[in-house]
Amino acid sequence: METLSIVKIGGNTIENEGELQKLLELFSAIHSPKILVHGGGKIANKMLSKLSIIPEMIDGRRITNKETLEVVTMVYAGLVNKKIVAHLQKLNCNAIGLSGADANTITAHKREVKEIDYGFVGDIDLVDDKKLRGLLNMGLSPIFCAITHDTKGQLLNTNADTVASKIASALSLEFKTVLYYCFEHDGVLLDMKDPSTVIQKIDSESYANLVSKGVITDGMLPKLFNCFQALEDGVAEVRIGNLGLFEKESTNFTSLVL
Amino acid sequence: METLSIVKIGGNTIENEGELQKLLELFSAIHSPKILVHGGGKIANKMLSKLSIIPEMIDGRRITNKETLEVVTMVYAGLVNKKIVAHLQKLNCNAIGLSGADANTITAHKREVKEIDYGFVGDIDLVDDKKLRGLLNMGLSPIFCAITHDTKGQLLNTNADTVASKIASALSLEFKTVLYYCFEHDGVLLDMKDPSTVIQKIDSESYANLVSKGVITDGMLPKLFNCFQALEDGVAEVRIGNLGLFEKESTNFTSLVL
Repeated sequence: METLSIVKIGGNTIENEGELQKLLELFSAIHSPKILVHGGGKIANKMLSKLSIIPEMIDGRRITNKETLEVVTMVYAGLVNKKIVAHLQKLNCNAIGLSGADANTITAHKREVKEIDYGFVGDIDLVDDKKLRGLLNMGLSPIFCAITHDTKGQLLNTNADTVASKIASALSLEFKTVLYYCFEHDGVLLDMKDPSTVIQKIDSESYANLVSKGVITDGMLPKLFNCFQALEDGVAEVRIGNLGLFEKESTNFTSLVL
Repeated sequence: METLSIVKIGGNTIENEGELQKLLELFSAIHSPKILVHGGGKIANKMLSKLSIIPEMIDGRRITNKETLEVVTMVYAGLVNKKIVAHLQKLNCNAIGLSGADANTITAHKREVKEIDYGFVGDIDLVDDKKLRGLLNMGLSPIFCAITHDTKGQLLNTNADTVASKIASALSLEFKTVLYYCFEHDGVLLDMKDPSTVIQKIDSESYANLVSKGVITDGMLPKLFNCFQALEDGVAEVRIGNLGLFEKESTNFTSLVL
């Protein structure tokens, strides 16, 4: 089975021009089929503030009203996405920028209102693996921004981590999918204050142990929960770390397997 | 030979929600392969003014400095493009939004500085007809915003009329290409003050006549010049008009042939 790499890059990488370029160089050097997924967090916040729109956040999640959705669409699907695509073209990587509405690749529904009304936020229903395979077969590397649609004309702001893991799961029948979560740390740390304590491998058993011992807490809890969900949905491996993720001899990242 | 329709819609259509919806319904009802090209003029101007960036214009052409290019990219490739794509998906038209950087479909070079420095404005070098055919063969309808790239990482603001005609020419070896220019008038008018005086057909001979008699003047001169250029480059027919362009029994538009 051919390997397919799905790389999710976070807001910190996108905002740091030098780091973004380095990441894109490493991404374009992957010779098997590949897909990139990006958010664009703080650039959207800056644009909202320039336009005097105050971003609403609850539990670290943005409340997406109509005005915010327009700005997020402009920044993610326009500014950030096209900048990445143009830069990858320079690096001879034939990138194609997509939202979930494009080629109907990712359909979602507006999140149900329970205690909180998140506004125009989408929970993913379906990834069209056939269309994605079609694009990959053309030698293209899809570059996804975290915008999906409901097939009824409504664009929806969607969590970029989830976009990456749903794409990876959907394509895991035809590819050996490896999901890379690139963020500011070198991996999952045994001691959050000591960057040298990267845990190199976590499987379901050690995962349960680490959770019960309180090593994995806060923001890492939902992240790792989603990773193990993806593994159960057929993803072969999840790697979490910084740029070291892509360096050939490096073991300075956390590898998650079932 | 199969017919390929390339539809260029102007700023006026994009700004008028009702008219845009009607146009997209007519577009999605075209059952043979189709491509849409859009600008987004005044929405970009509004965004520039909201961000306190003063748009520079010379001879009706925008001077695209770095800041302006960012806004134009956000508005054209983000806001306008994804709104159109999501709406077409609702109408069961499998649209895929593209800039020229995506899949390296349209390459251009930064316009040479002669008397005027237009800034980050692109003149088109090449349309990748093979990649476009690949997308059309997947049952997709490409929706182009008027942003191209120079293959060296630089996005470039490009005239949307030219994007449409270059795409039409590039695909005219494999398709019978019909180029539709959709604008505020019903066609080329004999008397600019009388909308009922649409000239139904213009060929190279009557074109020369109309120019020498001064019927075609001002903005219409470069527009028609470009149309005849496209016809000489292999485009089968150019149609100029309003929504009547797409109505089956309608003859209320101007048809240009060699």
